[in-house]
Amino acid sequence: MTIEEQIAYLRKGMAELIRDEDLRERLKLGRPLKVKAGFDPTAPDLHLGHTVLIRKMKHFQDLGHTVTFLIGDMTGLIGDPTGRNAMRPPMTRDEINANAETYKAQVFKILDPEKTVVEFNSKWLEPMTFEEMVRLCSHYTVARILERDDFSKRYQSNTPISIHEFLYPLAQGYDSVKMQCDVELGGNDQKFNLLVGRELQRAYGLAPQIVGTVPLLEGLDGVEKMSKSKNNYVGITEPAPVMFSKLMSIPDDLMFRYFELLTDKSVSEIQQLRQAHPKETKMELARLIVTDFHSREDAERAAGEWVRVVSQGSVPADLEEYLVTEPGLRIDKLLVRCGLAASGSEAQRKIKEGALEVDGARVSELVVLDFPGSYVLRLGKKWKKVQG
Amino acid sequence: MTIEEQIAYLRKGMAELIRDEDLRERLKLGRPLKVKAGFDPTAPDLHLGHTVLIRKMKHFQDLGHTVTFLIGDMTGLIGDPTGRNAMRPPMTRDEINANAETYKAQVFKILDPEKTVVEFNSKWLEPMTFEEMVRLCSHYTVARILERDDFSKRYQSNTPISIHEFLYPLAQGYDSVKMQCDVELGGNDQKFNLLVGRELQRAYGLAPQIVGTVPLLEGLDGVEKMSKSKNNYVGITEPAPVMFSKLMSIPDDLMFRYFELLTDKSVSEIQQLRQAHPKETKMELARLIVTDFHSREDAERAAGEWVRVVSQGSVPADLEEYLVTEPGLRIDKLLVRCGLAASGSEAQRKIKEGALEVDGARVSELVVLDFPGSYVLRLGKKWKKVQG
Repeated sequence: MTIEEQIAYLRKGMAELIRDEDLRERLKLGRPLKVKAGFDPTAPDLHLGHTVLIRKMKHFQDLGHTVTFLIGDMTGLIGDPTGRNAMRPPMTRDEINANAETYKAQVFKILDPEKTVVEFNSKWLEPMTFEEMVRLCSHYTVARILERDDFSKRYQSNTPISIHEFLYPLAQGYDSVKMQCDVELGGNDQKFNLLVGRELQRAYGLAPQIVGTVPLLEGLDGVEKMSKSKNNYVGITEPAPVMFSKLMSIPDDLMFRYFELLTDKSVSEIQQLRQAHPKETKMELARLIVTDFHSREDAERAAGEWVRVVSQGSVPADLEEYLVTEPGLRIDKLLVRCGLAASGSEAQRKIKEGALEVDGARVSELVVLDFPGSYVLRLGKKWKKVQG
Repeated sequence: MTIEEQIAYLRKGMAELIRDEDLRERLKLGRPLKVKAGFDPTAPDLHLGHTVLIRKMKHFQDLGHTVTFLIGDMTGLIGDPTGRNAMRPPMTRDEINANAETYKAQVFKILDPEKTVVEFNSKWLEPMTFEEMVRLCSHYTVARILERDDFSKRYQSNTPISIHEFLYPLAQGYDSVKMQCDVELGGNDQKFNLLVGRELQRAYGLAPQIVGTVPLLEGLDGVEKMSKSKNNYVGITEPAPVMFSKLMSIPDDLMFRYFELLTDKSVSEIQQLRQAHPKETKMELARLIVTDFHSREDAERAAGEWVRVVSQGSVPADLEEYLVTEPGLRIDKLLVRCGLAASGSEAQRKIKEGALEVDGARVSELVVLDFPGSYVLRLGKKWKKVQG
């Protein structure tokens, strides 16, 4: 690839790149760049929204650069220092290590484990001295940090800001100093913090890092940001058929956005897809994504099942609804309750035979569905929509 | 002394005591209180203005409390972290120790060396970790620290405040936490920082310290704050006759203020002195102060000399003035230049014989006077005022 082609590849789907010229200059050096993205140390349960950033890390990896997955464990070790937030007690080293393993298991579905450095910022923050802290803080002004959107709003509205909150963006920037990053990637909402890193590197006599931000991914509804609480997400550990059918449910407009942010297709390839048949294109999208987190075979099988169940119009038009009043029931009991099975043992036997589908995906275990929520259940030839 | 008498003794000359009731409660505990005052680690050259605070420390010592002279060496070890202020390079441990010795030599003229603890705050700040720092900073808000007068003015006028400047008042308060102070004393201008200590102690589960502030001392002119740069000061290492005659030059009104802030006389004793003859009273003041820094004999001798030279009206009313155009001259040369001696050798001989007085104080060495300045010189029976 020429340098311009590399820039186009890396820039695809970015919300902002600060700055193109800097990245061009840095790529011209011809050495592998040090690229970092930081992650919380809290228990990871990633959905496709998180993978936009991870995929952008992969793109740098594809071009031979060194990517560091930085776990910001120092804040986790501290917890909520005010002690007022019971949700944020300090984490132990063991908990953090366990979470790191979970992270790896998930992100290595996209990133190349051989080429990924996993690092913890406690490595340099734990031994940091009062003197280093004072020096670090001397490189940034109160007025500038109060420009950060959330600080500015809270200060204006007299909502207390504790002074330690100022330390976190500086510590994040210090990570870039200690790691001598060439590039830092992050969500759009992290832009301020990433720019602090640029300034601190300059203050410590380093070339300022290039900052690349990725947009927040729209959820399956195409409107709200993807999140578990909005139930408009695809979790990266969900079964292949569930992922596939969820992806097939998105609005047609959204699929090109998903191609841009969730696949490695180039801008011109995506342009060509706009000419193709929407359903075929959406199935291609779903296949690509499912392949990333499962396998090509799983994707094909899920596609086949989806075609059979949904595309052939099996869902009755006059689907009966059942209102769930007892949300914690196991699926066999729920099937009895909603009238799809005469008894628990009949339900269990049919589930074992593979006769149960939830939202078009075969379910062969005695799961408990999440409520509030809404599901189309099929047991053999009988259908019911359950919600609550 | 009763508790009320103790409070009266300690409260004398204070600008503010926060709060009387707290001090009363703490004294009732019947144990020695931990009292601290903090000092810069820079080279000390103390004048009477500084002794107001040190004398207040002594008063606590007089009542059996434990007084700590805390040298804030951590900021000295850091210097100016921005590197922009060439006047504040980091100090070495040796420089700080040497300054501490100079401090001791000076303050032990007032404080009892046996009862004074000399401590350095690097003891707990140097090993402080990032985590402790974050916890410390979590106990104070941005809005509250921006209320400090100088910060507030700078923020309003868009004069940059570096974030590390927020760390210093917190570190000072942390000193009180680590030392478990009962009382912190400081200048009036330190009030905000001393109150931060109160709050931090509360946050760390300790009883908040009592804060006592002392006023800034007026200089010899009775108008401006005493300072070397205003040349309205009495240095505590100046010779007894110089101190004595400088003190005799203050306005009559000012002497009661000096009794209050620079001697151990009680409020009622000072009240009685208002009935006495002003000159006698002022001489008593000068004797007391000179005795503190020299000896009773030195004070008597200085008083005798002052009476002989000045009080007997020896200074001619029509004192001739000489304008100094060459400020660096040694005193014998200056005496020739201004016409008091016919030759350098005559001047040197007379100086040796003790015939030279500068501002009423005998000078028997070949000194160089500081200019700009103004001095009354007497050589034998001849007088001249030199200035430049």
